[in-house]
Amino acid sequence: MIVTPNGFRKGLTVWFTGLSGSGKTTLSSSVHDVLLARGFRVELLDGDDLRNHLNRDLGFSRRDRDENVRRIGFVAELLARNGILVLVSAIAPYRNAREEVRRRIGNFMEVHVNAPLEVCEKRDPKGLYRRARAGEIQGFTGIHDPYEAPLDPEVRCNTHQESVQRSTDKMIAAITKYLGSSAPRFAKIG
Amino acid sequence: MIVTPNGFRKGLTVWFTGLSGSGKTTLSSSVHDVLLARGFRVELLDGDDLRNHLNRDLGFSRRDRDENVRRIGFVAELLARNGILVLVSAIAPYRNAREEVRRRIGNFMEVHVNAPLEVCEKRDPKGLYRRARAGEIQGFTGIHDPYEAPLDPEVRCNTHQESVQRSTDKMIAAITKYLGSSAPRFAKIG
Repeated sequence: MIVTPNGFRKGLTVWFTGLSGSGKTTLSSSVHDVLLARGFRVELLDGDDLRNHLNRDLGFSRRDRDENVRRIGFVAELLARNGILVLVSAIAPYRNAREEVRRRIGNFMEVHVNAPLEVCEKRDPKGLYRRARAGEIQGFTGIHDPYEAPLDPEVRCNTHQESVQRSTDKMIAAITKYLGSSAPRFAKIG
Repeated sequence: MIVTPNGFRKGLTVWFTGLSGSGKTTLSSSVHDVLLARGFRVELLDGDDLRNHLNRDLGFSRRDRDENVRRIGFVAELLARNGILVLVSAIAPYRNAREEVRRRIGNFMEVHVNAPLEVCEKRDPKGLYRRARAGEIQGFTGIHDPYEAPLDPEVRCNTHQESVQRSTDKMIAAITKYLGSSAPRFAKIG
């Protein structure tokens, strides 16, 4: 059980990383809904969404991608240290940037939302792969830019092989185990 | 009593605005300590500090200052909607930017930390006025750039006339009154 300087239990940041189309949004939303229904204080930070607000000045160069991850990590840390369970859904393609966030935040769980590139490209929920292949988008992760898969993530969900329900169950089990005996401390009040 | 979509009570954002040297850091830290001692979940966002993290790409043009305020507002909103009491200490010199944040967040209390420019310049805790007068700093609020004082702030603390203790007491009274019957809901758990 980790207690912050101000006496609250430290939260947990669960970072869903993976290619576009790997299922990050679907899985993180599903996990969010279950945690909310169980009474946890939980916040979902969606990388795409944050690019319309906090990070709207950032592009997709390596430097901007790293800054994107750093800022999301900073916000996650603020929430987590106030006892909020934070779910982040963001590609975060570079291993170093993810490791920097992990070191900074402390209570960090990395989830590799994994599916082969061919599968992600076939799903193409937002039509981004098609546009990237047509040259309408530059620097697209998996096509032009690298995706550095986690080497040793806390959880890996192979979304081409397991259902959303199965992945969600795995995540809830992992999170509950991680929080351990302090889990009830996160339960909502009032 | 305001309940957010996820069922938590909405927090409150208290924004301390004022010239450099007006006493924002001193007062907000004092209020923070009292609230913490009373068991509130409270977070203090310091504008200077955030410029080393979240906003390190931003300068002091009007555009950058407004973006600075917007980002701080965004983070405050995330914390507040999870039931955290948020104190912000940041100059936020432009009225429009402050009003935009107020409209966006909803539960917003504006505090004018007020002292005449001459007093602030005489205090000059960080030596910034001296450097601004010497031409070493450009675009300094109050010297080169405007400070648009709040027209109708929820609280005004005239720090050249009242003690830190007196200002703190006023703030605690205002915050307690604002939260009203929902105040206990913000009390820490565990």
